[in-house]
Amino acid sequence: MEGEPTLQLRVFDLNCWAIRYLSKRRQERVRLIGDMLRQEGFDLVLLQEVWSERDYSDLKAKLGGCYPFSHYFRSGVIGSGLCVFSRFPILDTLLYQYSLNGYPYMLQHGDWFCGKSVGLVVIKISGIVFNVYVTHLHAEYCREKDAYLPHRLVQAWELAQFIRHTSKAADVVLLGGDLNMHPEDVGIRLLRGWTGLRDAFAEATRFEGCEDGCTLIPNNCFTVKTELLPFPLGIRIDYILYKAVSSFTVKCEELKTTMGTAPGMDIPFSDHEAVMATLHIRRQGQAADSNLGTAEPMLADVVTEARTEVGVGLRAAQRQRYSTGRMAVLALLLLLLQAAAALGTLAGLAAGQPFPKLSFSLLAFFAIGILLLATGLHLFHTIEVKMLQGTEEQLRMALRALQEHP
Amino acid sequence: MEGEPTLQLRVFDLNCWAIRYLSKRRQERVRLIGDMLRQEGFDLVLLQEVWSERDYSDLKAKLGGCYPFSHYFRSGVIGSGLCVFSRFPILDTLLYQYSLNGYPYMLQHGDWFCGKSVGLVVIKISGIVFNVYVTHLHAEYCREKDAYLPHRLVQAWELAQFIRHTSKAADVVLLGGDLNMHPEDVGIRLLRGWTGLRDAFAEATRFEGCEDGCTLIPNNCFTVKTELLPFPLGIRIDYILYKAVSSFTVKCEELKTTMGTAPGMDIPFSDHEAVMATLHIRRQGQAADSNLGTAEPMLADVVTEARTEVGVGLRAAQRQRYSTGRMAVLALLLLLLQAAAALGTLAGLAAGQPFPKLSFSLLAFFAIGILLLATGLHLFHTIEVKMLQGTEEQLRMALRALQEHP
Repeated sequence: MEGEPTLQLRVFDLNCWAIRYLSKRRQERVRLIGDMLRQEGFDLVLLQEVWSERDYSDLKAKLGGCYPFSHYFRSGVIGSGLCVFSRFPILDTLLYQYSLNGYPYMLQHGDWFCGKSVGLVVIKISGIVFNVYVTHLHAEYCREKDAYLPHRLVQAWELAQFIRHTSKAADVVLLGGDLNMHPEDVGIRLLRGWTGLRDAFAEATRFEGCEDGCTLIPNNCFTVKTELLPFPLGIRIDYILYKAVSSFTVKCEELKTTMGTAPGMDIPFSDHEAVMATLHIRRQGQAADSNLGTAEPMLADVVTEARTEVGVGLRAAQRQRYSTGRMAVLALLLLLLQAAAALGTLAGLAAGQPFPKLSFSLLAFFAIGILLLATGLHLFHTIEVKMLQGTEEQLRMALRALQEHP
Repeated sequence: MEGEPTLQLRVFDLNCWAIRYLSKRRQERVRLIGDMLRQEGFDLVLLQEVWSERDYSDLKAKLGGCYPFSHYFRSGVIGSGLCVFSRFPILDTLLYQYSLNGYPYMLQHGDWFCGKSVGLVVIKISGIVFNVYVTHLHAEYCREKDAYLPHRLVQAWELAQFIRHTSKAADVVLLGGDLNMHPEDVGIRLLRGWTGLRDAFAEATRFEGCEDGCTLIPNNCFTVKTELLPFPLGIRIDYILYKAVSSFTVKCEELKTTMGTAPGMDIPFSDHEAVMATLHIRRQGQAADSNLGTAEPMLADVVTEARTEVGVGLRAAQRQRYSTGRMAVLALLLLLLQAAAALGTLAGLAAGQPFPKLSFSLLAFFAIGILLLATGLHLFHTIEVKMLQGTEEQLRMALRALQEHP
């Protein structure tokens, strides 16, 4: 309208499901993803679950020509799994690791070991500063009884706060990733409301792909069909969100998803569908401050709802902290009793050896094991309580701010 | 000069050394600190090592009248120890926990359990946005052979990056805390060079306090005298740093430190001396972009030096990762051997019981213990390697940016 040229940006987002030794046909799929990315020539590629640095290096080598700039975010035991490929120079990066991320003893879920994080890369295109965030939140293993909801909410809140605090000088904010939340979930409403980010799927002028924009669908041969039984169409948990923070507008011209198989192939790229957005960015006369969502009274409800859920998690964590602490004390008492009995025997107070040596030592080892384990768990749940309390307090502060300046 | 009024800000910073059950005369000192803060009426109070939330609550109750706004940053097992009291409303907060912070098995040093972090509070005074950071970096236990230097450097780098990324919309940036670095150390040169922060002690028009601005002095009855033997005057490790990021200037009119004892008392507030700065902030005509330090060629040298030290730490961490991994494999082999022997006996392959039961079970328990311990350590050092690699790569990127745009 004002004669300013429009910048077109093509963004690709995919949870690659590339777990070494565990993900089916991983190497073949990573090769396929690389081939497609090279062929399609996106401007920005945001990937999750690239757990092996070797896979990242292979992609980097293959994509060097069309995406000369890239960054791999390291964290946790296994890694963050996050990486970015870009046609434009990456000026700066920052990683923020979420303070809560599941439980180390839930080995079958494994999220704790991944060091789930949000990665930021700063990019400048035609003088426009883009803050690009890529993230992956804690998985949801059971929707009916979701024990990880408080942790995921803490992550969503930390993500929102991290974006708000780091994006103040950006012209455009982009977030891509596997948020492990359905569009109507409280965490995503909190994230969107608190940051003002808009959902590319909801805003897209044209859409092409799975019904309702789903990214985990029964039609994909790698998804676990039983988990999707309550959702015959699938679920939408992978997103591209965006906003313009200064005198720019962003519009999603087109959104696409893959549909169960890679184009022209017999297998999908991943167990998730890829999300591809074509964004149009243009300078406008007036600055539109969309720092907080538009409907603040509604936002207050969302914050209250999130706070309630975090409170539920807090009480569960406090119970765990108490019961592990009690178990540690009991194990210590048992050990002390044994020590007293052993000393009594040594001092000749008891007539002869009252216990068989073997069971006596086995019991002592058992007590030491329980003591160590319970102490470790007690420390862990102490941290959990602290972080949940911290988040609850921050949400309370946010609520007060919303109520004072409505 | 331009008729704009000058804003005066009085800032107080102290490492309170308030460790429950361990710090001498803790409760008495916390009371003293509270009394003095109430009497002096600073604008901003930045405290570290307030480990007990009870102490924070006591201070908050006492200071509610003159510092109506406050925030306690929760993290780690024990806490971050960081808190802020303010005369002006705190608009927002954010906590960033450093990715490396010593070793869990160094129980005598204990830093790992503290969840060392940097806390940010956003404050607006007379329309000027202040980003106020408070932090406490890993302690230095042996200057000659400082095993924690790479970790402290990672922290200094993360601190610098966190400040840069979060302060882009701030008018004034303030950082107070115990950085555990001498003024000429590479970490503080990196922090100052990369953020453009200025040292209140070096810039102060008037100074009153310990010689050279030292904050850990032999004259304080709580300091360990043998540790300060090489430094007869003491050392300066507590700082107030500042910069103006937009069209403002900040000037340190006066800097003071306490001098071994609390004024009019027989004991000091802490084993550290307090740092008190009076800052004058005024609006100026032209924006002064001091985002990066002034002497960039020198900064490149500092980044290179930091990178070398991080590289040394990386190689040490890789060695530790290897040796703990090897130990875990050996313990596993021993267990397998024992299992084979036990199965052999059960199957009647060996004539009778070849080992006494007791030592056989003790050995098995020993092997299991070593296996668990070595595996845990191996995972820990794997994380350490990842974070050091990540920082080294970021420093390499920073160096390239400095060399490309000199």
